[in-house]
Amino acid sequence: MTNTPTAQIGVTGLATMGRNLARNIARHGYVTAVHNRTESKTKALVGEFGHEGTFVPAATAEEFVASLTVPRTIIIMVKAGAPTDAVIDELAPLLEEGDILVDGGNAHFADTRRREVALRERGIHFAGVGISGGEEGALLGPSIMPGGSEHAYAKLGPILADIAVDVDGTPCSTHVGPDGAGHFVKMVHNGIEYADMQLIAEAYDLLRHGLGWTPERLAEVFESWNSGDLESFLIEITARVLRAGDPSQPERPLVDVIVDEAEQKGTGRWTVQTALDLGTPVSGIAEAVFARALSGSAAQRRAAQGVLPGPAEVPAVGEPGGEEGAGGFVDAADAESFVEDVRAALYASKVVAYAQGFDMIRAGSVEYGWGIDPGAMATIWRGGCIIRARFLDRIREAYEKQPDLPSLLVDPYFAGAVAAGQEAWRRVVVQSVQSGIPAPGFSSALAYYDGLRRERSSAALVQGLRDLFGAHTYRRVDRPGSFHIDWSGDLSESQFS
Amino acid sequence: MTNTPTAQIGVTGLATMGRNLARNIARHGYVTAVHNRTESKTKALVGEFGHEGTFVPAATAEEFVASLTVPRTIIIMVKAGAPTDAVIDELAPLLEEGDILVDGGNAHFADTRRREVALRERGIHFAGVGISGGEEGALLGPSIMPGGSEHAYAKLGPILADIAVDVDGTPCSTHVGPDGAGHFVKMVHNGIEYADMQLIAEAYDLLRHGLGWTPERLAEVFESWNSGDLESFLIEITARVLRAGDPSQPERPLVDVIVDEAEQKGTGRWTVQTALDLGTPVSGIAEAVFARALSGSAAQRRAAQGVLPGPAEVPAVGEPGGEEGAGGFVDAADAESFVEDVRAALYASKVVAYAQGFDMIRAGSVEYGWGIDPGAMATIWRGGCIIRARFLDRIREAYEKQPDLPSLLVDPYFAGAVAAGQEAWRRVVVQSVQSGIPAPGFSSALAYYDGLRRERSSAALVQGLRDLFGAHTYRRVDRPGSFHIDWSGDLSESQFS
Repeated sequence: MTNTPTAQIGVTGLATMGRNLARNIARHGYVTAVHNRTESKTKALVGEFGHEGTFVPAATAEEFVASLTVPRTIIIMVKAGAPTDAVIDELAPLLEEGDILVDGGNAHFADTRRREVALRERGIHFAGVGISGGEEGALLGPSIMPGGSEHAYAKLGPILADIAVDVDGTPCSTHVGPDGAGHFVKMVHNGIEYADMQLIAEAYDLLRHGLGWTPERLAEVFESWNSGDLESFLIEITARVLRAGDPSQPERPLVDVIVDEAEQKGTGRWTVQTALDLGTPVSGIAEAVFARALSGSAAQRRAAQGVLPGPAEVPAVGEPGGEEGAGGFVDAADAESFVEDVRAALYASKVVAYAQGFDMIRAGSVEYGWGIDPGAMATIWRGGCIIRARFLDRIREAYEKQPDLPSLLVDPYFAGAVAAGQEAWRRVVVQSVQSGIPAPGFSSALAYYDGLRRERSSAALVQGLRDLFGAHTYRRVDRPGSFHIDWSGDLSESQFS
Repeated sequence: MTNTPTAQIGVTGLATMGRNLARNIARHGYVTAVHNRTESKTKALVGEFGHEGTFVPAATAEEFVASLTVPRTIIIMVKAGAPTDAVIDELAPLLEEGDILVDGGNAHFADTRRREVALRERGIHFAGVGISGGEEGALLGPSIMPGGSEHAYAKLGPILADIAVDVDGTPCSTHVGPDGAGHFVKMVHNGIEYADMQLIAEAYDLLRHGLGWTPERLAEVFESWNSGDLESFLIEITARVLRAGDPSQPERPLVDVIVDEAEQKGTGRWTVQTALDLGTPVSGIAEAVFARALSGSAAQRRAAQGVLPGPAEVPAVGEPGGEEGAGGFVDAADAESFVEDVRAALYASKVVAYAQGFDMIRAGSVEYGWGIDPGAMATIWRGGCIIRARFLDRIREAYEKQPDLPSLLVDPYFAGAVAAGQEAWRRVVVQSVQSGIPAPGFSSALAYYDGLRRERSSAALVQGLRDLFGAHTYRRVDRPGSFHIDWSGDLSESQFS
């Protein structure tokens, strides 16, 4: 029991993420109050890691709040949804005006907005803070996306900058914007992560079946990619996963014993649902979410086995885990150029996925008046988080040069990079279609690219159909106004506005 | 002012849809009370169409309710959202236990569920009824998707069956299920409509630029398709729109003067958002919604002009509205087989879109306990609604033969049809990719098909990555349980359950 408040910051919720974040904070010299609903976790933390810094363990919420210097700063690290509301409801009555309550969990930004309003009425600053990097990141330096008021950030910002990872001397933490902005950007980060992983999985699948190479040999391909434009955490760990053997039978690749049904925890879904509300086409993220859902539709997939034929002319593909050179659909002599084509397709598709994600950040910022600086988001994603990548430096530069860039794809660097790779990209999509290996991420990204650059789209026909069956009217290319054709009459045109 | 209640049914909200529905009901011999917030519309309806049946006009809500025989049946035909709630709030206090309140508007099914619960507590039966077919359908015979209690349906069903369109002697109206089931199915109908229109627009775009034919000549192609497997309202009206000239300058095709930015009213978006919650991959609908959004991103499209290159080798494509034979990317000698390929691709993609939509109906029915009969939905969509098509008879038959069909795609008829067309489908997607004409609907549908039929998916790699960066665990193909690799340690495997 503490008698005098001494702690500079408190963390409640000491599951893996919360425990590691508290240790990270304490290791940076902050006196850190720690609390958990069941006290055993608090005791375990202090018992095992107490030597790392100054912890002030608290058995109850009252004790926890009393241990903090005023104005208090408390980070909640519990499950999103009802558990977060429960902790807020427990703490809020114990707090005073001017205290700062931080949600460091994976809340939906709409919940953060709701909570911020409710707590603001009680004089409490509520800051939703996105934290990315998993267990290890929480301990050693995550990427942090803090939302909330300027006032809250003035106190919280320096602590977060201390515990965040640094890249080139810049901490991966910056004030994103008011209320739900931080959790919104964290959500988009996760959506981009879905798209990025889907694209990597497609690249792997095409290489494996195109070349008939073992996962181990493909690990080398990904390793070599990791020293170029594609350098990123996800490419690096793809190589590690592909290199891993089954621990029960090491000559068998691990990737071949994992059930091929991808799971999800919901943030990809949230991203697409929100993008639909904002009117931002995030087809790359949507295809990734749907690909996971389809992979998990086990009964349907079983029913389709042997019923739905693939392309006739494709040579038999080596069994998963088959020997090197078991034979893919690409001639051995073309292996090198195929690898390079797939690399270019992956890079171009990735640019599209990020362009869509950044469009969504801009749209959300406008919708909610957050004033988010997209370049700053690229900057804080360079380290600590799952999508950390060399690539993000280029995105930062693009927005530095042109803060109101209409699309990442029209930035000269990215436009040039995609232009250089587009023929390869088209070849790879063609090969996926001809070989029957699905590449919804690659093909959807390419369709988006072609849709964006197209001078005239087929949407004019859609508008014509809508006018015919629903009198939805259309606009004309040659004069302003809304028009309607008398489709069931003399086909005359009336102007509506 | 009526003194004795005489009306068998009432309609409130007399904008185009409500007025036409009231006329349809009155024409079928029902004494129909009519009411509108502003009385002028009520007077106009009776003044203009009073001879068509027996209308009981009411100036106020009180008068309207008083004019109806008990138990009352009232159809609300106002805008979805707040206006619907406002009308309910005005009417509910005037109603008695056992009365039936019907929402014939385009409500979100979740709102219908909420309203049904609230009104049930007051003893009022609330039925959400999806009505499709636009103005003309409302008057001459729509497709009707009634939700709500069995009790409400017992009274309402015969009236709806009378006013719905008939196909082969069967009315296009059947009890969908409790509470929000009717509006849910109407929403999915609209989502499928988005996908169907997008696919048609892609077919048109590829034909136009592949062949260099005029819209008028392409109208003939669509007309010929309309006497085959593709026979449907949307194909029929596509021919009509393509045949239409600009009323200001008739030698110019109408489709070339319509601004190529598709609009939307939200039901496609709702469908995708709901499908994401249900875990059903509706990639065809999502790509259609996103294609509309992209077409409307005018500033981005302008910025991309001349910056993002297309494929180098494609021959210049005839200007929109250019002369017949202006030259497309398909050799004139191959024109006939190209048309047939595009037809096959459209058909196969359409099967995928409908398969996804029917999967979603099943998933929604399970989630909300609605007990929806998918075959019955196909039956009531055969007439009156936008997606009415010969095709739906095949869907009805498929579910008749196998009510628990795992996917439309594995029904022998559809599996055979798609198998017969899949090589053509692949050729068309390849041509779209090589020519730079976006076909996100075609390519996404094909990727779904290949994903469904694939024995082993690349999702195993995704699960491996998730285990590495987030300890999300994976399942093994050879034994039950959840497993995790000690990625930062000795790569040993632990079992979690």
